[in-house]
Order: sequence, then C-alpha cells, then structure tokens
Amino acid sequence: MADINSKLEIGVTTGPIRGSSKIHVGPLKVAMREISLEPSSGEPPVRVYDTSGPYTDPAAQIDIAKGLPELRRNWIRGRGDVEEVAQREVRPEDNGQLGPDRSGGVPPFPNVRRQVLRAKPGMNVSQMHYARRGIITPEMEYVATRENLGREMLREHIRDGQDFGAAIPDYVTPEFVRDEVARGRAIIPSNINHPESEPMAIGRNFLVKINANIGNSAVASDVASEVEKMVWSIRWGADTVMDLSTGRNIHDTREWILRNSPVPIGTVPIYQALEKVGGIAEELTWEIFRDTLIEQAEQGVDYFTIHAGVRLPYIPMTAKRVTGIVSRGGSIMAKWCLAHHKESFLYERFDEITEIMKAYDIAYSLGDGLRPGSIADANDEAQFAELYTLGELTKRAWEQDVQVMIEGPGHVPMHKIKENMDKQLEACGEAPFYTLGPLVTDIAPGYDHITSGIGAAMIGWYGTAMLCYVTPKEHLGLPDRDDVKVGVVTYKLAAHAADLAKGHPAAKVRDDALSRARFEFRWRDQFNLSLDPDTAEQYHDQTLPAEGAKTAHFCSMCGPKFCSMKITQEVRDFAARQNQPVETFVAADEAEKGMQEMSRVYNEGGRELYIGAGDRQHD
Amino acid sequence: MADINSKLEIGVTTGPIRGSSKIHVGPLKVAMREISLEPSSGEPPVRVYDTSGPYTDPAAQIDIAKGLPELRRNWIRGRGDVEEVAQREVRPEDNGQLGPDRSGGVPPFPNVRRQVLRAKPGMNVSQMHYARRGIITPEMEYVATRENLGREMLREHIRDGQDFGAAIPDYVTPEFVRDEVARGRAIIPSNINHPESEPMAIGRNFLVKINANIGNSAVASDVASEVEKMVWSIRWGADTVMDLSTGRNIHDTREWILRNSPVPIGTVPIYQALEKVGGIAEELTWEIFRDTLIEQAEQGVDYFTIHAGVRLPYIPMTAKRVTGIVSRGGSIMAKWCLAHHKESFLYERFDEITEIMKAYDIAYSLGDGLRPGSIADANDEAQFAELYTLGELTKRAWEQDVQVMIEGPGHVPMHKIKENMDKQLEACGEAPFYTLGPLVTDIAPGYDHITSGIGAAMIGWYGTAMLCYVTPKEHLGLPDRDDVKVGVVTYKLAAHAADLAKGHPAAKVRDDALSRARFEFRWRDQFNLSLDPDTAEQYHDQTLPAEGAKTAHFCSMCGPKFCSMKITQEVRDFAARQNQPVETFVAADEAEKGMQEMSRVYNEGGRELYIGAGDRQHD
Repeated sequence: MADINSKLEIGVTTGPIRGSSKIHVGPLKVAMREISLEPSSGEPPVRVYDTSGPYTDPAAQIDIAKGLPELRRNWIRGRGDVEEVAQREVRPEDNGQLGPDRSGGVPPFPNVRRQVLRAKPGMNVSQMHYARRGIITPEMEYVATRENLGREMLREHIRDGQDFGAAIPDYVTPEFVRDEVARGRAIIPSNINHPESEPMAIGRNFLVKINANIGNSAVASDVASEVEKMVWSIRWGADTVMDLSTGRNIHDTREWILRNSPVPIGTVPIYQALEKVGGIAEELTWEIFRDTLIEQAEQGVDYFTIHAGVRLPYIPMTAKRVTGIVSRGGSIMAKWCLAHHKESFLYERFDEITEIMKAYDIAYSLGDGLRPGSIADANDEAQFAELYTLGELTKRAWEQDVQVMIEGPGHVPMHKIKENMDKQLEACGEAPFYTLGPLVTDIAPGYDHITSGIGAAMIGWYGTAMLCYVTPKEHLGLPDRDDVKVGVVTYKLAAHAADLAKGHPAAKVRDDALSRARFEFRWRDQFNLSLDPDTAEQYHDQTLPAEGAKTAHFCSMCGPKFCSMKITQEVRDFAARQNQPVETFVAADEAEKGMQEMSRVYNEGGRELYIGAGDRQHD
Repeated sequence: MADINSKLEIGVTTGPIRGSSKIHVGPLKVAMREISLEPSSGEPPVRVYDTSGPYTDPAAQIDIAKGLPELRRNWIRGRGDVEEVAQREVRPEDNGQLGPDRSGGVPPFPNVRRQVLRAKPGMNVSQMHYARRGIITPEMEYVATRENLGREMLREHIRDGQDFGAAIPDYVTPEFVRDEVARGRAIIPSNINHPESEPMAIGRNFLVKINANIGNSAVASDVASEVEKMVWSIRWGADTVMDLSTGRNIHDTREWILRNSPVPIGTVPIYQALEKVGGIAEELTWEIFRDTLIEQAEQGVDYFTIHAGVRLPYIPMTAKRVTGIVSRGGSIMAKWCLAHHKESFLYERFDEITEIMKAYDIAYSLGDGLRPGSIADANDEAQFAELYTLGELTKRAWEQDVQVMIEGPGHVPMHKIKENMDKQLEACGEAPFYTLGPLVTDIAPGYDHITSGIGAAMIGWYGTAMLCYVTPKEHLGLPDRDDVKVGVVTYKLAAHAADLAKGHPAAKVRDDALSRARFEFRWRDQFNLSLDPDTAEQYHDQTLPAEGAKTAHFCSMCGPKFCSMKITQEVRDFAARQNQPVETFVAADEAEKGMQEMSRVYNEGGRELYIGAGDRQHD
C-alpha cells in the first residue's frame, strides 16, 4: 500500500513529540504521553493527556491506505447487540453534485469495508443506554484512566479553584464516568462503525476538550491533504475533529479520514445533503437528508451537528440583526423554512433522526444556527429562543438514550459570556456545552484565534465542556498548516487555563513542573513541557543560538548579569545555609529577628554572585 | 541632519495606516485617526484613538535628529511655576559601567538641551496638584477631547456593560478629567521636560491603555534600533512605552527616545543605578539612586517604576515559592536588603523621592517586586504584603500631590484574578492599576502573548487601567519587530474587549462598523477597520489573491455557493420586499401569521439565489 501513499503524496506526520514517549497504561492500554525531565531535576516524568494516536508511537506501523487498528472492535461486537449489514452503495452524488472527480482528486479508500455494523432491531447501542442500565463499558473504563493522569501524584494536594457548581471528583472512577453519561452530563462519542477511535469524554466534570475543523471548500484546498490535516491537528492536541468539507469527493475524503482517525469525527450532514440537491436549499427533502445520515452513520461519523433548533418562527427575529444568520447550517434551514413556509423538517423529524442515531451510537451536537455573528447581536432573542428549543430537543433525545451536546456562540462581549453558560445549563439540563470561541471583540481579524481564545478560556472556566478552535484566518481565508497548529495550541492553552481555574486536581502538575524547570534554567525541560516545544526552542534560539545557551543559567531577557531568577536562588541558598527549614522564613516577624546574623554570614561567605562565567554568551 | 539619520541607519516607519487619515480636533488640535469607508456604505468615517503621533501624519516633517515639536512647551511655561536650570553633566557611568561605547553604538542626541526645567523652589508642578487646586490644565482638556471620540454619535445609545463599580461617564468633560486626577483615580504622566508628549490619561474610568516595553540588553539587541521600536510600538497602539535598557549607552539611547516620543516614557531607574555600581546590588546607595532620578527627570521620563514595596520583612516570604522573586527590580532590592540587613532605602527615602517627582511631574509606577512568577505562587502572602505597602505609599505620595499608579502581576490563574483587582482597589484607594498580563497558565511558552492576553482582558474588564504587553518571545528571547507588533495588537484587542465589557459608550462603534462591513462584503472596509489592516488583507489574499476577490460578495470560508451571509441578506431582502418594517418581524407570534403569504411571494418572485455569477472566482 506504500505506493498508494506516495502516489497520493499524502505524507502524514509521524514520530514522537520531542522529549516525550508514548506509554500505555492499565489493562486497557490507555495511551498517554510522558515527558521525561533532566536527571538533574530529580523529578519523575510528567504524564500528559495524549490525543495524537499511534502517529506519535515509534512502535506503530502507519499505513494510511490500511487505516488504524480497530481498538474497540471486540468491545463493540462482544456486547452482542450489533449485526453486520451490507454498506449502502456509494452513489455519484455522494461525492458531489457533478459526480466524483477522481482524476486529480481523491481515490476511494482502498481498504473500504463492505459490511458495516448497526444495532440489531430494537436494540440501542449508545453509551448512554448502557450507562442508564448500570453497565460500565470498556469505553467508560478507558475514559476514567485517561482523565486521571497525574492525580495519583496529588494525594496531598489542596483543591484550589472555582468550578461554578460543577462536580469535579478528586479521582475519576469508571462508575463516575458511567454516572455522568447516564445523567447526560457527559458524552463519549463512539459510533460503532468507528472502532479505530480512542474513547474520550466531553463533559463539565472532565478536562475541557477542544475541536479542530478541517475540510475542503469550493474555493480552495485540495482534498488529499485532509488526512494530514487531521493527523496534524491531533498531534498538537485536538480532541475531536470536524470534517466540514463541502466540495467534491466528500464521501471518499471522509472515509480516508475516519479510517485513520483515533479521535471522534463530527460532521454537519446538511452540507452534504445540500450538495446532493445542487446547492438549492429549498430542494432539500427529509428523504435526502435521512439517506445522508445513514451514509455517514455507516462510515463511522461519531457526532452530527443538526440545526434542529432553527424553527420557522425564530427566523424573522434575525432580520434586524447587524449580521443576520452567520451559521451555514442555520442559513440553509432558514432559507428552506422561508421558501416552503413550513416548520423545519429537522425539528419535525427529530425523533426519527434520534432513532437512527441510537442504532450507531452517534451523538447529537445540536447546532446553534442562530448564533450571533457580531458583538452587536450577542445574547439576543433569536439566539436564546433557539437555545431553549435545543433544551427541549435534548430531553427528547434523552428519552431514547441518545447522547447530546449543545453548540454555542460565537461573538459575545465578556460581560455577556456567563449568561450564555447559565442559560445553557438551565435550558439543557447540564448537557455538555460546545462553543465556538466566543470572540470578545470584532475588530481584530487576523487575530481571531486570540479574540476567541479569551472568550473560550472564560466560558470553559464557567463550564463549557468543549471549545471549537478558531484559527488566525477566521473571517479571512482558509487556514494552512501553520494556522491549524496555532489554532489548536491557542485552544489547548485556553482549555488548560479553564481546567486550572476550575480546580481540576491534576491540571497544575504541568504548570508547576514547567515553572520549576524555568526557575532552575532547565531549558530543555521547559521546552519539552510546553504545548509547542518546537516553537519554544526556536524562539529561544533566535536570541541565543549556541548549544551552550540551552544549559546556561540565565536567560536572554536579562542576560548574565541581571538575572532575577539567579538572585532569587541566592536568596534561597542563603536561607538554606542557615540550616533553617524554609518554613521558618514564612512569618515576617520571626524572619526579621534572625536577619542581622544572616547578614553577617552572607557578607563573610563571599558576596560575589556572578561567578562561573563559563556559561556566559556575551560581555 | 538627514546624513546622521542615514549614517545611523535608523529608518523610522512613517506614513498613514492604510485607509486612515490624521485629523486634529478642537482648539487644542487633538490628534485622532479617521478611517474612511467605501462610499457605497453610506456611513461616516470612524474615529479611533490614535497613539502614533506625527509619524502617521503625511504633513509632518520627521527628523529624528531634531526630535518632535514641543506640543506642551507653552502650556508648561505659561503656568509660571518652572525655571530653567543647567542640565546635570553627563558622566561616563551614565552610559554604562565601562564608559560609553560610541564606536559602534549610539552617538549623543545632536539636538540635546543644555537647559532643562524644574519647579521653582517650593512649587509643585504635578497635574494632581493643579487638579486639587481646581485648575483645569490644557493637558486635561486634551485628554477629555481625546477620550470622547465617537461618543457624540451615540446620543441614543443604551449603555450596556458591567463596570464593577467604576464611574464611566456618558461624556468626558475637562472637569471630569480634573476630578479624576484630583482623586488619584487617574494619572496624566507628563514630565515638564517631555513637552513632546501628547497628553493621555490612565484610569479606571477612561479607555483601557496598553504599554509596550523596549530596551537593549547585555546579551543581544543593538541600541540604534530602539527609536524605531518606539515608533513601531505606538504605530500599532502602544499608549506608553517603557525603556528597560540595561547595557551601555543607556543615557544616550533614552535621550533619542524621549526627544522623539509623543507618548509618555517610563523607566526603572534602579536598572541604571545598578549599572553605575558595576552590577553589584549591595553597593547601591541612596546617593547614586537619587542622582539617577535627577538625571532621568531632567531628560523627561514621565513615570518611574520604584520598587519601594519590597520591604526587608517580606523577602523571606518568597523562599518557599516555586519561582521566588522574578522581578528584576524586586530581586535587586531583595539582595540589597539581605546583604545589609537593612530596610530598603527606597522605602526609607520614599518621601524624598516624592519631593523629586513633584518638581518635574513624574508619576510613580509603584513596582510589584514580589509579583508571582508562576501559577503556583499567585496571590500569596509576599505578593499581598507588598500590595498593602504600595497602598500605604500611595497615600504618602498623594500627601504631596504626586501622581501614582500601581503595578500588578504577573502569573495568575483565572479564578484568582479578580481578587487582585479587588484588593488593589481597596488597598490603594482606586489609584490606577497597571498589570503585566497576567498569564493564566505557565505551559505555553511561545504563546505567552495569548496566555497573558486572556488575563489582561479579564483584569482590564475588572478595572485595571493599563495593561503591560507581553510578546510571543516572553520567557524565551528578545522580541523582534514582528513580535512587538503581535504583542501590541494582542494587547490592543484585550484592552478593547475590556472597554466593550465595561460598557464604554464609544467602544462598540468600531465593532459594529466592522461587522456591517463584514456582512456587506465590504472587504476593504473590513481590513481598514481592523487593528492590523496589513495582516488582515494578507491573510485574505493567501486564499483569494485576485483583486476582484476584494469586492466579491462571498468569502473563502464558504465559497460562492455556500455563503451564509448571502443567504441572510436574502432573508432580509425578502422581509423588506413585503414593505414591512424590520420591527414587525421581531415577535415570533406575529411573524408566523404573515408567513404563508410571504412564502407565496417568495416563490413567485424567483427562488434562484445564486444569480450574478460575475463575481465568482471558482466553479
């Protein structure tokens, strides 16, 4: 298959992230990343959550024409509630209105399955269904191990955070995961036809997750690079990936992505349905939409964005907005509703959609088709009318034990962010919230990963379970490889900031390890512990390129003479030379008493600080 | 002088920001920037706050060897309370311990003044002193006009924001400015020896300001580029600039910067004082420090960071920290205190320092020498002990009518940010807070403009008056030109997000204008209204380089067929065709009634949306 790979010129990025190794923990061999520190530190390796799949495992054989191993194959089949059926025949329109463009485009996935899984008649294969029946699945066990990470190291850790009424446990047990899924407070997106995925949870009481969007477009992008986009996104930390392709070869591209993805894949099925009717929204029908759901369900899509909350009566509420309807799915449905003057078929057929979802364990991502597209439109009547409908639909999905998360805005000034979270929790019964940013100002195109990263960190702190990334190209163009990385890292840091502020027990381990490395001038440890070791080292090298500078006991901000961290170390060493434990220095009054004697010793002991000039680079 | 300029190879950036022109408003000719919109928009130009000085004015003659015109010369002299004195002789040690390195370095400013100003004996020339005597200075009038911007356009605007107890007026009058300065809630840094500066206010009830740090270093950077760094920083929006140089030629570099700066310049005098004693902190004396204050006061530095809150008893509180003392000034003073076992001379001599400040109208920026350098150390005993001392010193400075702002952290997780603001307001009597970020996580070196931008936006919303920028190179290396721009723009967007959330009356004007431009596909207006028009257009062009794409009625995210904004316009046009005002569409019940008829008209009127293919780029 290697020749197909090279023929396609799809080179996916493999190999470990620097300073890290892949480990597999516990009986389920849960994949994690371990960052080794310099022996001089005397510190154990730091375990971090790892979304990158086998691509960062040197022991794994990667062949994208074969796809990844089916981690969950036996778990799914072992439950005895699925059957094999012949896959729906691929039709020309599945790959775009003008038929598949295979000449310069994407060939069908060579290892395509002819038989797919579906629930046996009358069965429900959703994780929520098992959870509500008291069953702890291997998926739930996997999630429990995965979420715990360094919590064992923190037995004596004092919890520190403001979680706004969440229920974050000290230690995640499989039973806790089951209970959260049963309540609908967390989802584990896990289509039975995507056995390659490594189970992960999205919920307010778990680590905050991030999503990266990929997809071709009618204007630019070539479909062959989409697999690498996925691999690249998860390398830097994307927990799920949404394939938003709209051009030709949609079906085949999705197959390539799914067969090679260790993370859940989400889609917006209405995009493909619209392609099938030549882009004419009013020609969409329930039958075409339903067929598209089956097509994608059989391929293994893990969650569907369904804009079922865009109801006919809400559409006119957007007419006075500054930026109207900015969601693509929302505007497609708005147009359909207006043209037919009918209630949305997504709303009307919601229970039928749910029937399909439960036969594959596809989770709902209830789309916010009326989200605000500008600061001016934030938190308006249209937005909240839709949100309350999403709450109603959540309960209807839960009646069939189908997993649900709720999509949220968009563009919201800081003082209106919390209202979004509060209303969502209330309206949707704590179903996980999944927001796009929000952007906290409209005036910085080119920097909207940052304007939205601010809102994302805040709403993540308030309780949002997953943050959909925004790249620097948002509003302007299509993200390239660098943009995707910047978007993912920005959202990873926002999610982590939220975890810290919520008081997730293990979150602080990495910050503290990095800060100790910084303080002790362990430059390599500082790079390796960071979210993007390559960029950190590159920035360092721009100022101090010499190899020796990486072990130098000063940094380029101050230089060898003015280093405040070095002076602090002197303060600390000085304290230590008194043979007094550090604790005795805490109380100001006590400390002052011993100072005169300490001053004498310090002066006698040699006051020169800047000895050991061997590591100086200049001056 | 042009040959000096070219000999030095200092090319400063001049010319207007694209799409903008410089205007001068009112009798004081307050400089603003006006962004013109496309005639098709039917909208007036948008006025924005302008920090860039004459460098963006095509009518200005820029000659950095001459310096800027002295805008405030007559205001200062007209008050009759200053006298000319001979400038303190420049000594070799003023330019670094090894003497001035003029060979490859920086020559003295050619247009240097021999006579400088100082208050007549017994006089106090601070803006606070005038304010408290009921005098409205031209500086205060200038600030009032400058802060108002588009507020006139908003007569009918409904205030929308959460200001946490601030007192933001609908309209800024000179009397309001005077009152804020008199109370100590705002400062107007304005050394009488820096008449080139355009007055600006830092205070909780004014627009949030940002500071950019520049400076050479013993390790890298050459001093000649520092003037351009200042010009470049203010071009993108820096409200003040701090010169943190520590190497050779400090005095001469500062003179070049001051004579060419239209924004207030801040310094940390202890850095230069330390150079004068060969970098040995314990050899610092009050006399050397005092002489440095005079030297810099006479040059025109507008605010001094003074770490007078690093008191002897607090130093041991840092010994148990993860990252000890990370402030350079703080660690210098800590070392001095420990070596001598004496209370800090900055604290002991505080009133004498204040005497000097008031003779030139230099504002205090009371340094947070014990700020946390990591998430682990945030909000600890040492930090808050110092903060309360800064509160005590604020009141002592105010007794002599000297202006004060308070520096703040640093590294703080989100849930601990508000406590910083609350304690600062309480301890320091609402003196303006001036924070560095704070960074909300430690794990993203290379992205610390973002980790800190999140904290900056939040603390700005809570009430911080000025945000000190952080560049992507923070903790790693020295920022280059691109890093400075990214840092400034990031902080500008954070400050603006804070203004929006606080409910500053005029803040939303720019967001709304940009959002309308976005909705109407006025690409050039969208670029020009953004904080960084060059980057916005460049990103757009990477996907759609053709000139025609800039006027195309679709964007690259969706392409010509899938454009949600286009569909929204159809919804709106459709509503308008019914000859019903938009307001009638707001109430869902009413709207539903008329829908059937509207649907009929829509279908009869031709349902094809994607007509006018002339602007399509592909497919």
